[in-house]
Formats: sequence, C-alpha cells, structure tokens
Amino acid sequence: MEPKPLRHVVLFKFKDGTTADQVRTIEEKFGGLKSRIPGIIGYEWGTNVSPEMLDQGFTHCFFVTFPDAAARDAYLPHPAHKEFVEVLKPHLDKVLVIDYVARD
Amino acid sequence: MEPKPLRHVVLFKFKDGTTADQVRTIEEKFGGLKSRIPGIIGYEWGTNVSPEMLDQGFTHCFFVTFPDAAARDAYLPHPAHKEFVEVLKPHLDKVLVIDYVARD
Repeated sequence: MEPKPLRHVVLFKFKDGTTADQVRTIEEKFGGLKSRIPGIIGYEWGTNVSPEMLDQGFTHCFFVTFPDAAARDAYLPHPAHKEFVEVLKPHLDKVLVIDYVARD
Repeated sequence: MEPKPLRHVVLFKFKDGTTADQVRTIEEKFGGLKSRIPGIIGYEWGTNVSPEMLDQGFTHCFFVTFPDAAARDAYLPHPAHKEFVEVLKPHLDKVLVIDYVARD
C-alpha cells in the first residue's frame, strides 16, 4: 500500500488593521516556502467562500502536503518558515492548524 | 486553463460524552456520503497529529472536493447530507467549515 501523505491545514484570520497589500505579501511569502523548503510536495490555498457561516472568522486556508510527519517536523523549525512566521505574526488575529494523515 | 476545484474543509470537536463507537459511526457516515451524493469528486479525512497545539480543540478534519460551487450548493441541502447532520449534531461540541477555490 502506498504511504499516505500528511496534510498540514492552516487557517488565518488577519487583524482589522492589516491592509490588502500586507495580506497579499503574506499569501505570496507562504507560497514561496515550497521552493525554499524541501519536503513540501503539495501546496494550494484560497479564501473562504462557504455560505454556511461556520468559518469562525477565518478567511484564509492554506493546504500543505508533506510525504510524512518527518518532513513536517523538518519544515516547522526551518529558517525560511521561521522567517515567514515573523512577517506573519504582527498581522495575525487568529490561527488554527490541524495536520492529518490522509485516509480514504 | 483547467477550472479549479472547490475544497470543503470541515473540522469537528466532539462532546466529552461521545463514545469512540459513536465517533466511528460519524466517520463512516461522512465517508458514505460520497456514494450517495453526486458531485463529490474527492474525499479524505484524518485525525489531528499536529504538534503545534494550534488545533483549538478540533480533532477531525474532513476534506471534500467538488468540481465547483454549484456542486457544493447541491450537496448542502441534499437529503443524505441532512440525514448525516442529524446523526452528527447531538455529538458536536464545535464545528468549523471553510470552503475555498484551490489556487496554486
């Protein structure tokens, strides 16, 4: 059986004072990590379009795929990731992270 | 350009009194929807394995893919989905839903 990838699901709600330009910078910097950190084998993102009103204020979802937990463990303390977090942090109202090993 | 799919990301936290058997039933019934509701073109799920402690208590992530928002709009009021929600609801402590159109 093929090993199942690890999904890293990241939700953001930005602060009221964060500008559209600052949000765009964060979106681009997150996307830039895939070329800077080995082990990211999938990356996509988007902004909330659910009509259900169950988003709890989160507006952005980033969906990062690693081959396994070891690759995720190497990503978290990677200097490029830490640099991104420093850019992100002043603008973050709320964050939610859940990782799972994909099952059918 | 190929149209981008719509991702439907659903997080659950179950009530303290919900048993492992009841959780398993919910996991199975959610997975059963893909054979009952047309328009689900992808389905996977898993339980949280993030070490970051940013899960806000959510334990389960379900990741459902539709070809477009119209398929999601047909899914939400579908009788099979509503039946599932009735089974789920008594056990739900928290739910979060975010949908996004996948971008690279």
